[in-house]
Amino acid sequence: FSRRGMQTVTLIPGDGIGPEISAAVMKIFEAAKAPIQWEEKNVTAIKGPGGRWMIPSDAKESMDRSKIGLKGPLKTPIAAGHPSMNLLLRKTFDLYANVRPCVSIEGYKTPYTDVNLVTIRENTEGEYSGIEHLIVDGVVQSIKLITEDASRRIAEYAFEYARNNQRSSVTAVHKANIMRMSDGLFLRKCREVAENYKDIKFTEMYLDTVCLNMVQDPTQFDVLVMPNLYGDILSDLCAGLIGGLGVTPSGNIGANGVAIFESVHGTAPDIAGLDMANPTALLLSAVMMLRHMGLHELGSKIQMACFDTIRDKKVLTKDLGGNSKCSEFTDDICRRIQDM
Amino acid sequence: FSRRGMQTVTLIPGDGIGPEISAAVMKIFEAAKAPIQWEEKNVTAIKGPGGRWMIPSDAKESMDRSKIGLKGPLKTPIAAGHPSMNLLLRKTFDLYANVRPCVSIEGYKTPYTDVNLVTIRENTEGEYSGIEHLIVDGVVQSIKLITEDASRRIAEYAFEYARNNQRSSVTAVHKANIMRMSDGLFLRKCREVAENYKDIKFTEMYLDTVCLNMVQDPTQFDVLVMPNLYGDILSDLCAGLIGGLGVTPSGNIGANGVAIFESVHGTAPDIAGLDMANPTALLLSAVMMLRHMGLHELGSKIQMACFDTIRDKKVLTKDLGGNSKCSEFTDDICRRIQDM
Ligand SMILES: CC(C)[C@H](C(=O)O)[C@@H](O)C(=O)O
Ligand SMILES: CC(C)[C@H](C(=O)O)[C@@H](O)C(=O)O
Repeated sequence: FSRRGMQTVTLIPGDGIGPEISAAVMKIFEAAKAPIQWEEKNVTAIKGPGGRWMIPSDAKESMDRSKIGLKGPLKTPIAAGHPSMNLLLRKTFDLYANVRPCVSIEGYKTPYTDVNLVTIRENTEGEYSGIEHLIVDGVVQSIKLITEDASRRIAEYAFEYARNNQRSSVTAVHKANIMRMSDGLFLRKCREVAENYKDIKFTEMYLDTVCLNMVQDPTQFDVLVMPNLYGDILSDLCAGLIGGLGVTPSGNIGANGVAIFESVHGTAPDIAGLDMANPTALLLSAVMMLRHMGLHELGSKIQMACFDTIRDKKVLTKDLGGNSKCSEFTDDICRRIQDM
Repeated sequence: FSRRGMQTVTLIPGDGIGPEISAAVMKIFEAAKAPIQWEEKNVTAIKGPGGRWMIPSDAKESMDRSKIGLKGPLKTPIAAGHPSMNLLLRKTFDLYANVRPCVSIEGYKTPYTDVNLVTIRENTEGEYSGIEHLIVDGVVQSIKLITEDASRRIAEYAFEYARNNQRSSVTAVHKANIMRMSDGLFLRKCREVAENYKDIKFTEMYLDTVCLNMVQDPTQFDVLVMPNLYGDILSDLCAGLIGGLGVTPSGNIGANGVAIFESVHGTAPDIAGLDMANPTALLLSAVMMLRHMGLHELGSKIQMACFDTIRDKKVLTKDLGGNSKCSEFTDDICRRIQDM
């Protein structure tokens, strides 16, 4: 049943600490009276017809209906040939853009302050094509595929994102000096799309130079857009600047409003079930989700409560430098929301 | 003519600030009574038989004789099809290992202290194969080539380096979860070679995880070995941690003792000829060169003088935060050497 005015979200709690941090997010959403109805699903892949790995059909159908997913960390079963669950989800729902805002969190000390950037990663092709060959004994090739369509699509997404989020510049990250044709094509599409967004400053930079400049002064960057592997690298690097994967949200965006928001940290099996996990990354991903759904105010309210709890330093989980439990951290955020 | 007891080094001053910083290094070597005889050569590529770009034959012959080169920054002519001069040199002399020690410099403040690591990059294949195709309109592929031989060779170099430089661990950096065959082959060779170096700890880490961990705590790393592109990225990132390309040395190593040491910063045409350039990166590269030639004590002496000048903060070039000229900085180092 669907309560009036409620929107359904497919919840994929995930493995390890996944269920605990998902419960924390649900509790906080309850406290915030978020008009969200959760439809909990398990996505662990099964072998479909023809031996292809696929996510269970009820999970697929739930996502097809709701269009929006929130997911905790997933472990990838070690069965031979089993694909990464993350890759399988991206593929199943054609989630072509991975978006990671990296914003310094006041009160959580790292070597950097005032980081405020967003990495936008092409999520479907490039080095992740999965096409590899043994040419002769001892010689292997992997194929990186870059298409005009996917490059234009991600470039357009990046510029739209910049415009809709009051950001002023987009930097295309590439190695077109080495991969002249593939990265060259990507870059050309970025340049073309940039022509349609005269309000947004466009720059281009080599990946190696971006990495060097990033660790020297991340405040010079705003929105960065790049092919798949470079995004894998740079999004983790940037997460490191603001405190790591435990505090960094992530969203995977597809066509027609489809999207899955996720914490990108691991399942942390060593602390699973011990009420020690930090739900921040999943909570901030859920905040991204609210904004994606148009619920901006609600998102800001929850985010503010979370940042207040962190800035206050009184109730922090262990990884954040405190000694509170996950449930205490969660309750502190709930209390702040109720007091707002 | 070759003076008694002198070893010849091919000097490639390079473009832009190259001649000034080369002159600075020569002056400091003179002050240190280094038994080096410079053979100055220009390597700007020419079109050889069959239209292939190649370095001029007298530069090639000089390197073939001396086996050791020191080079400043080179600009790549923009003539159509002209290869990067750096790539051309690596190829011409089969310089298969790029070695970059990144060590925090006392007195030169960055967000990090106690960085002390070395990146070892495979320099000949991988994403730099240069093989690319247009498959159909709008679809391009680039081929990444990984071979058993090159992977074993770089792994062996890394472990030998670790052993000869009193380093205790080697980390192989890869994305074998995505490029299972190519990075898988690279990783397998690293594992095999590790078996022969029981005195050195061996670990493996995904490139994205390395980047994240690197910006959070670089002191956990020692020697890192990786395929070409990952090395391009990570070596620049690590240079950023200790102050950038202006203070980071680099060596390109080939078989049979052949090697070219180089500063990896640009030609800085805006300040060329103004006596403002910082010769540190080229000088520290020349120190690596001395060690490579077995002149350890002399190398340490020059390095110490350079670090003393930087720590002292009285005579620094502009990029290092001072307002002295290149020649003054150079003279300060010379004076310290003479006083030792
Ligand atoms: C789990 C792995 C397949 C994945 C990747 O390489 O894309 C991960 O690093 C990520 O960024 O989501
Ligand atoms: C100049 C360029 C070809 C080169 C590379 O990408 O390898 C540079 O970045 C380097 O690291 O030497």
